[in-house]
Amino acid sequence: MRHHDLVMFGEAMIRLSPPNFRRLEQTNLLDINVGGSELNVAVAAQRLGLGVAYVTRLTNNPLGRMIANKAREHGVDTSYIVWTDDDRVGTYFVEFGASPRPNSVVYDRRDSAIARIRPGEVDWDAIFKGVKMFHTSGITPALSSTAAEATKEAVRVARKAGIKVSIDLNYRALLWSQEKAREVMSELVDAADILITTEEDTERVFGIKKDNYEEVAKALAEQFHLGAVAITLRETPSVWRNTWTAIAYANGKIHRGPKFDIEVVDRVGSGDSFTGGFLFGYLHDGPAAAVRYGVAISALKQTNPGDLCWATCEETERLLEGGGLRIVR
Amino acid sequence: MRHHDLVMFGEAMIRLSPPNFRRLEQTNLLDINVGGSELNVAVAAQRLGLGVAYVTRLTNNPLGRMIANKAREHGVDTSYIVWTDDDRVGTYFVEFGASPRPNSVVYDRRDSAIARIRPGEVDWDAIFKGVKMFHTSGITPALSSTAAEATKEAVRVARKAGIKVSIDLNYRALLWSQEKAREVMSELVDAADILITTEEDTERVFGIKKDNYEEVAKALAEQFHLGAVAITLRETPSVWRNTWTAIAYANGKIHRGPKFDIEVVDRVGSGDSFTGGFLFGYLHDGPAAAVRYGVAISALKQTNPGDLCWATCEETERLLEGGGLRIVR
Amino acid sequence: MRHHDLVMFGEAMIRLSPPNFRRLEQTNLLDINVGGSELNVAVAAQRLGLGVAYVTRLTNNPLGRMIANKAREHGVDTSYIVWTDDDRVGTYFVEFGASPRPNSVVYDRRDSAIARIRPGEVDWDAIFKGVKMFHTSGITPALSSTAAEATKEAVRVARKAGIKVSIDLNYRALLWSQEKAREVMSELVDAADILITTEEDTERVFGIKKDNYEEVAKALAEQFHLGAVAITLRETPSVWRNTWTAIAYANGKIHRGPKFDIEVVDRVGSGDSFTGGFLFGYLHDGPAAAVRYGVAISALKQTNPGDLCWATCEETERLLEGGGLRIVR
Amino acid sequence: MRHHDLVMFGEAMIRLSPPNFRRLEQTNLLDINVGGSELNVAVAAQRLGLGVAYVTRLTNNPLGRMIANKAREHGVDTSYIVWTDDDRVGTYFVEFGASPRPNSVVYDRRDSAIARIRPGEVDWDAIFKGVKMFHTSGITPALSSTAAEATKEAVRVARKAGIKVSIDLNYRALLWSQEKAREVMSELVDAADILITTEEDTERVFGIKKDNYEEVAKALAEQFHLGAVAITLRETPSVWRNTWTAIAYANGKIHRGPKFDIEVVDRVGSGDSFTGGFLFGYLHDGPAAAVRYGVAISALKQTNPGDLCWATCEETERLLEGGGLRIVR
Amino acid sequence: MRHHDLVMFGEAMIRLSPPNFRRLEQTNLLDINVGGSELNVAVAAQRLGLGVAYVTRLTNNPLGRMIANKAREHGVDTSYIVWTDDDRVGTYFVEFGASPRPNSVVYDRRDSAIARIRPGEVDWDAIFKGVKMFHTSGITPALSSTAAEATKEAVRVARKAGIKVSIDLNYRALLWSQEKAREVMSELVDAADILITTEEDTERVFGIKKDNYEEVAKALAEQFHLGAVAITLRETPSVWRNTWTAIAYANGKIHRGPKFDIEVVDRVGSGDSFTGGFLFGYLHDGPAAAVRYGVAISALKQTNPGDLCWATCEETERLLEGGGLRIVR
Amino acid sequence: MRHHDLVMFGEAMIRLSPPNFRRLEQTNLLDINVGGSELNVAVAAQRLGLGVAYVTRLTNNPLGRMIANKAREHGVDTSYIVWTDDDRVGTYFVEFGASPRPNSVVYDRRDSAIARIRPGEVDWDAIFKGVKMFHTSGITPALSSTAAEATKEAVRVARKAGIKVSIDLNYRALLWSQEKAREVMSELVDAADILITTEEDTERVFGIKKDNYEEVAKALAEQFHLGAVAITLRETPSVWRNTWTAIAYANGKIHRGPKFDIEVVDRVGSGDSFTGGFLFGYLHDGPAAAVRYGVAISALKQTNPGDLCWATCEETERLLEGGGLRIVR
Repeated sequence: MRHHDLVMFGEAMIRLSPPNFRRLEQTNLLDINVGGSELNVAVAAQRLGLGVAYVTRLTNNPLGRMIANKAREHGVDTSYIVWTDDDRVGTYFVEFGASPRPNSVVYDRRDSAIARIRPGEVDWDAIFKGVKMFHTSGITPALSSTAAEATKEAVRVARKAGIKVSIDLNYRALLWSQEKAREVMSELVDAADILITTEEDTERVFGIKKDNYEEVAKALAEQFHLGAVAITLRETPSVWRNTWTAIAYANGKIHRGPKFDIEVVDRVGSGDSFTGGFLFGYLHDGPAAAVRYGVAISALKQTNPGDLCWATCEETERLLEGGGLRIVR
Repeated sequence: MRHHDLVMFGEAMIRLSPPNFRRLEQTNLLDINVGGSELNVAVAAQRLGLGVAYVTRLTNNPLGRMIANKAREHGVDTSYIVWTDDDRVGTYFVEFGASPRPNSVVYDRRDSAIARIRPGEVDWDAIFKGVKMFHTSGITPALSSTAAEATKEAVRVARKAGIKVSIDLNYRALLWSQEKAREVMSELVDAADILITTEEDTERVFGIKKDNYEEVAKALAEQFHLGAVAITLRETPSVWRNTWTAIAYANGKIHRGPKFDIEVVDRVGSGDSFTGGFLFGYLHDGPAAAVRYGVAISALKQTNPGDLCWATCEETERLLEGGGLRIVR
Repeated sequence: MRHHDLVMFGEAMIRLSPPNFRRLEQTNLLDINVGGSELNVAVAAQRLGLGVAYVTRLTNNPLGRMIANKAREHGVDTSYIVWTDDDRVGTYFVEFGASPRPNSVVYDRRDSAIARIRPGEVDWDAIFKGVKMFHTSGITPALSSTAAEATKEAVRVARKAGIKVSIDLNYRALLWSQEKAREVMSELVDAADILITTEEDTERVFGIKKDNYEEVAKALAEQFHLGAVAITLRETPSVWRNTWTAIAYANGKIHRGPKFDIEVVDRVGSGDSFTGGFLFGYLHDGPAAAVRYGVAISALKQTNPGDLCWATCEETERLLEGGGLRIVR
Repeated sequence: MRHHDLVMFGEAMIRLSPPNFRRLEQTNLLDINVGGSELNVAVAAQRLGLGVAYVTRLTNNPLGRMIANKAREHGVDTSYIVWTDDDRVGTYFVEFGASPRPNSVVYDRRDSAIARIRPGEVDWDAIFKGVKMFHTSGITPALSSTAAEATKEAVRVARKAGIKVSIDLNYRALLWSQEKAREVMSELVDAADILITTEEDTERVFGIKKDNYEEVAKALAEQFHLGAVAITLRETPSVWRNTWTAIAYANGKIHRGPKFDIEVVDRVGSGDSFTGGFLFGYLHDGPAAAVRYGVAISALKQTNPGDLCWATCEETERLLEGGGLRIVR
Repeated sequence: MRHHDLVMFGEAMIRLSPPNFRRLEQTNLLDINVGGSELNVAVAAQRLGLGVAYVTRLTNNPLGRMIANKAREHGVDTSYIVWTDDDRVGTYFVEFGASPRPNSVVYDRRDSAIARIRPGEVDWDAIFKGVKMFHTSGITPALSSTAAEATKEAVRVARKAGIKVSIDLNYRALLWSQEKAREVMSELVDAADILITTEEDTERVFGIKKDNYEEVAKALAEQFHLGAVAITLRETPSVWRNTWTAIAYANGKIHRGPKFDIEVVDRVGSGDSFTGGFLFGYLHDGPAAAVRYGVAISALKQTNPGDLCWATCEETERLLEGGGLRIVR
Repeated sequence: MRHHDLVMFGEAMIRLSPPNFRRLEQTNLLDINVGGSELNVAVAAQRLGLGVAYVTRLTNNPLGRMIANKAREHGVDTSYIVWTDDDRVGTYFVEFGASPRPNSVVYDRRDSAIARIRPGEVDWDAIFKGVKMFHTSGITPALSSTAAEATKEAVRVARKAGIKVSIDLNYRALLWSQEKAREVMSELVDAADILITTEEDTERVFGIKKDNYEEVAKALAEQFHLGAVAITLRETPSVWRNTWTAIAYANGKIHRGPKFDIEVVDRVGSGDSFTGGFLFGYLHDGPAAAVRYGVAISALKQTNPGDLCWATCEETERLLEGGGLRIVR
């Protein structure tokens, strides 16, 4: 048994995207990557040095194996993945935009193996031995009602085992209604210690709207008795040029991350890399470090193609120390 | 209203394949093509000069539009396609092999828009005006029970309109059992004038097994009162080097096509190109021409990547005249 | 006979461009696309929903067929194309720049099949049945003196049939002198209802120079008795970042399009997509709509590689409604 | 601590090869893969189901990390790799040939981190807990005199721990002389239970030459008191078409593997995949199974680009059962 | 002034070919290479060690410069190229086939700069100082009547300077009739010392038909008083698998080259590489060496993509010594 | 003997870089280019019209030949290169960044053939006949102590022959300490007429720090009795968007180059292209022209992938005349 700091639970998909700003209708090549909110978190956390296990349910075909392979390539433990010969591996298609055309995503994820998971299929008691934190997102329970039950089960077992729970709200309007999301997510966030979200998702799921994001974070922390609430903040003056930062509210205090100008290579999965960095910083040095590592590694992630983060801990810390833009030799 | 000689009905999918003999697990690029038995037939027939309309049901997203675009690129009329905002576009993955590793295909086609078609959605009466032949394959009714009903409806309307019916038996074990196939296909082939098949499919679907393929063709023609039965014949001494020919039985006579050594670039869809050439030859000059055009254009198809045929009528006839392998300038 | 709203007449070429900002001398790969002013217009108009036929003259070889194929892929009717076994298909090479290096184009278009067209080769009477608008550009008559005669013939027949005529001034200094252009274009614009141009071309061809583009548009409208004059306006602070808008003068009034910041993927053909959108808007809802659809679809076009536009009507309208730069899911 | 059946020790390098049969002088793209004799063995064994740890010494830069990443992607345990900030990662360049031009390899491996390893840097006692077999090749001790000492140390510790030792003779004339190889390899093979080699290497290193390879195997087994000796046998009528088989001598008996016609995609590393399959079969079912699994998985490997094997156990067994060359659906 | 052994005169073109056996209609990428009979000869001769100057006429644009660049890349002296701002650079398109589809070529070379060359534009007296041999092919005079005059001028000056003349007959039916070719080529071959040709071209141009190619060579040598006649011999059992050899007749004797099985990567330009090797061998060691070097280097050339040869002298000699197909390390 | 204006001496390497902003760990393709400070200078100078010879020491394998080939492709004379069968060709890996991730470089250059050069291996007396300027950089003597001796030898012979010496300070901290650099470079710069550097390198190597770069240039000129000192100036508001200019101090006067906004495709080697342009301008028209040509051609270089410059003299002058960003047709 390898040692894990973190355990992740969620869906990973095959991601297909045309190169060179081609539209899907126009391409005859697709880049193939794997991605999924919790897998993305796992990879970022592992790049920084945490031990991470990733739990999902996958069809045993080349596409399912590719997902597990890529998790392993990043050192993420895949030995708890539930394999099945049935169902399918979800796919999604990304078209990269340029102002004034935004990026767009077409999902084809229905009836995937993880959407068909049922409570009892994962041996959470075994998995959680020695673990510090369990993380999932609002996408996992949105996949299906059985997936929602399986998510609640994981959270319950984690709580009973005294493991901290982290939730990324991550509302997906294509998967469920705001009402349904509110009902399920309230229960999950109630059981959580850490919540990562955006102003917009908070309003859509919990109907919380405040004058500024600091107050949103505070309101969430109070309503759900959370140890920390993080909110990521993106400005998009253009598709290729964004700014990126985040704040966290913890113990009555606002912690602000650095703000970066981003030349965007691929912004898909940046929130997840933030979470990976946040959890790393949080476990090592509390909420102030959390928001700093979260912002820095997710800023770096946006300069790599694919959902997954390829920055190292050393690069992340160099950026936090104001590394500059000269060629690194 | 454009003039059509042929009308096709069936499923087309997005086909994804790794370049350069990579395995799916191994690739980070995919070639994207479109293909599907009846679309492949349509394109081959159109390349030779027939007017062809292709009927299917497609989700109105970039993948569905790509399928219609590629049909149009080949001059195939897509104006009768049924569009929907629901359901999905099927995909399939092809891994190209090398001896002793065969090609392999992973399908992800469940719940596609065409599998969800229901009788009454297509205005066959309008479509069939002035048409000479209707063609479909054993894949279409295998997609779902409603697709089977829709296929039977099309055949019924065609018969009533005095239009010849052509069927490619094309048994797909992943889609239905031999028993179910026999039940449905017997009804369809009973209504047909032309049947295109292989020895193996004939045995699996109809339980017909004879000493040689000539007798199989004859037995089929007699049992189902068919005007013509064609059987394609492939030998595979290696993955990259096949031989390819076909015979047809019509009016008590066996017609043999030429036999070609093939350096295989992509064999997927060769049977369909045979059918396209067969129908072209049949409509223009009867069964002897049919089998010759069918074999020649499908031999050429196997030298093009993708399901679709890019040979011209002139090239097909040059090959039939014994064109040779010198550089054509 | 399919129904057409628009008929286009002009040259399409094979376009070859090195990927990844390589210089031509430096590349060992070329992207291959097709393009040509009137074909580009045809495609944009068809993407928005018009029925369009494209008339040209093409050599019957793989390059000529590729041009027709790509027009068909976009649903443009190619059945009136004049095919020949002689002459050649023009090509042009594009090098994509980066500040301070501008894009550059090398043409190799002399003696193409369309440059060799002669009056009487196209059956305009048949083509124009039921058509609302005929469009060509100043490039077509510049190709050769016989092409100029053929263009005048088309305009004459259109006028006689009561069909509106639209002209894009599109001055090409490599093809003819300003004097020759003025002589021929004056006759064509005199017969036109709609003129699309830029300030600079107006000065070069007609010697019209005013304090601002609104006055240029007005002067053109008055001098040539035009129903509408549109002028496109580009600012190029850098190669990768432009602004883009247009105005139209019609019935004594200036109509202004929205102004967009463009992250330029490929600006070749943007004026043509503007024209396609302009004609769509004009036919559906008059000059105010014309300039809005024109600007929006051509802004989107500049984010797609290739001359041709891949935006949908829905995307165009979403942009006009202020769609924003968030990921579209 | 994860469970391992096998432990490997050796060098892995970055492999760079021009695509599409280009010569190195001619290319402007290189495919990048990782490979190395023992890593290749590790991957093949793991694909079949063994637990494998891979021990090497790597420079901690992106190239070193890529090697570890790819091992992990295949499920190979990399936690015992010795990391250093010094030295370099070896590279090698492969040019793929076509008859009459053979494949060629240019090595640039001098002074790599593993060549600089010294005895005492690896905690073999810890690594060997619960392990069944230790494997290395004749390349590892050839890298440098300290690497030779480190290899001998590993073998000594393995023997003391009662772990079987497997050696692939793998003579590399660029690395050391036949005399030096004989001296070092004699000591290592003396300590081994399993030897894998070719007729030619046996003659060059040990001066053993017999009438046929069966006698060579027998002679080796007797001279070095080996439990099993395997000899791989390749015929190369052309570069793209080889035959491939192997025999093993064990306990006084010759075991013959099946013989396959190979359409060669990439033969580099096939001997290593043989070894991986041989060790899997040997541990599970003795020498007869060993040679069968070895030949089958290495036949499949030669149809994948790269040194590493991507076949599954199911595919290997399907081939052993005479799977045939039909498309697998 | 650099020292030259050989001077070449002829046309080089930009060669465009779809990768991966795609048809032109089907591709969206083209490989770009340069080629042309005499340039191909120049490169092969230089690879073997001769000093070579290449004379042509080129348009001074990126395409013209690319041709000169690639000649220089191979060490061929381009300082005598005649540059012009007018005319164009010829292009040609190659589609690579697979049995039963042969390779095909589409030329677009009319009105190129070299076709517009006139006698007097090249300072042959200066160029020929210290040169041993002048070479051109039957393509050069076929380009235009002025090119024919310029070719004759070059041959005249060479003869006057006592330089040997070598001619490759190279009949191109698209460029001129057999009658015209006979008239011009008779004059050129009359002035030559060396003729390189095929049986088929000899029959088409000179009407010479004999029982075997040895007699053809002898007849040519006698009719035109030639020092050596070489005939290349290709068998094409399939597109990807050819055999290749040649013979030479000199001083009453037949010299036979080795015969190679070729796995064909790109056969375009193989005859030219033969000539390059032939001239190298001839100048160094007479006709027996000529035919051996010619066959070997042109066999190797067929395994490289592009018209140009990338073999080294060492590789050529290794092949002549029976190098075998083992990996070269 | 060809005429040369300039002679260069230094190291060129194989440069490997992942496309599309991939990290090295993430890529399976590498672009291959060649580069090296003095080769880059040679190419820029040759593009502008100077005759240039490049001296280095190279291993005679495909990588070494590729370096010479690419120099020849640009018309640079490579006939003085010292070839060896020993040692290796250095490589380096470039990762292209995006804000806030800077570009990074990993070198693997130790023990290259040029690092192993010894005084006496190059016949400088022969090379310097008729030459105007000798140029090298601070990288060459940093490669090894024998390379430092060989560099000093070249400078000594140049001085004795009355040839001007130009030095680019180019401090590489990975190759030597500041102390060692100061010792060696002081001697070399003392012998030089032209020094090209940056403020930062000046401080690191010579400890010279002033209020502004004009004073730095002046201080250098005075301390080392230099005819001209040039300092390049880059601002990096983001990775993809820089500004670029330079100044030169000569004869008591500051000459300022134009300042350009750069959309950065590849900034590696820009300083070297500056030097190539500077030396061209200096030899033709003195220091004012030098700084103008230097800035313009190096601005253009940054828009080409690779270390080498592909701009023409005409393009450089067009930019200096304020060419603008419109499409060049």
